[in-house]
Amino acid sequence: MTDNGITFINVFEIPADQLDEFIEQWRERAQLMRKAPGFRDVRLHRAISPDARFPLVNVAHWDSAEACEAAGGHPAVVASVESARTVAVANPALYDVVAEHR
Amino acid sequence: MTDNGITFINVFEIPADQLDEFIEQWRERAQLMRKAPGFRDVRLHRAISPDARFPLVNVAHWDSAEACEAAGGHPAVVASVESARTVAVANPALYDVVAEHR
Repeated sequence: MTDNGITFINVFEIPADQLDEFIEQWRERAQLMRKAPGFRDVRLHRAISPDARFPLVNVAHWDSAEACEAAGGHPAVVASVESARTVAVANPALYDVVAEHR
Repeated sequence: MTDNGITFINVFEIPADQLDEFIEQWRERAQLMRKAPGFRDVRLHRAISPDARFPLVNVAHWDSAEACEAAGGHPAVVASVESARTVAVANPALYDVVAEHR
């Protein structure tokens, strides 16, 4: 684990007419996640072009995979994710940084 | 445009046996991109799980969409991207940050 901790990236496929409501739900979920032990930061990215295959991409950093997974197991988060999955296809995964330029 | 500039995210689908070679090619391309005007930073993320749908996700920050697109138009970059597309499906898009917690 580098000092980058671990990166959690979730790539979403969502119909355009569901985006705004999804983002509101995501904000509520983020309020829970940010209080979890090991949370570092999160950014929700919205594609500028309406033609983008992935209109939303969430990039978060955690101290460890365990911290991230534990937070994701919170009952309120689980319930919120389940309801989000009715409108969006989520592709969550944990990543390490393998190359970087600043 | 917030002070985040603009975020360029490229979500890659690549066969596992092509990953290492792809990353080497990506490193060469990144050497060109990092010298371009308006470049801020870039991180290439590799999925920890071999089952991840998107084994590689590139997240870069630029001063503007124009700077990012201009850099992507560099002949050597165009040639490198074309060769990369023979092994990977790329999903590049520009994004704004719509929610953030630190």
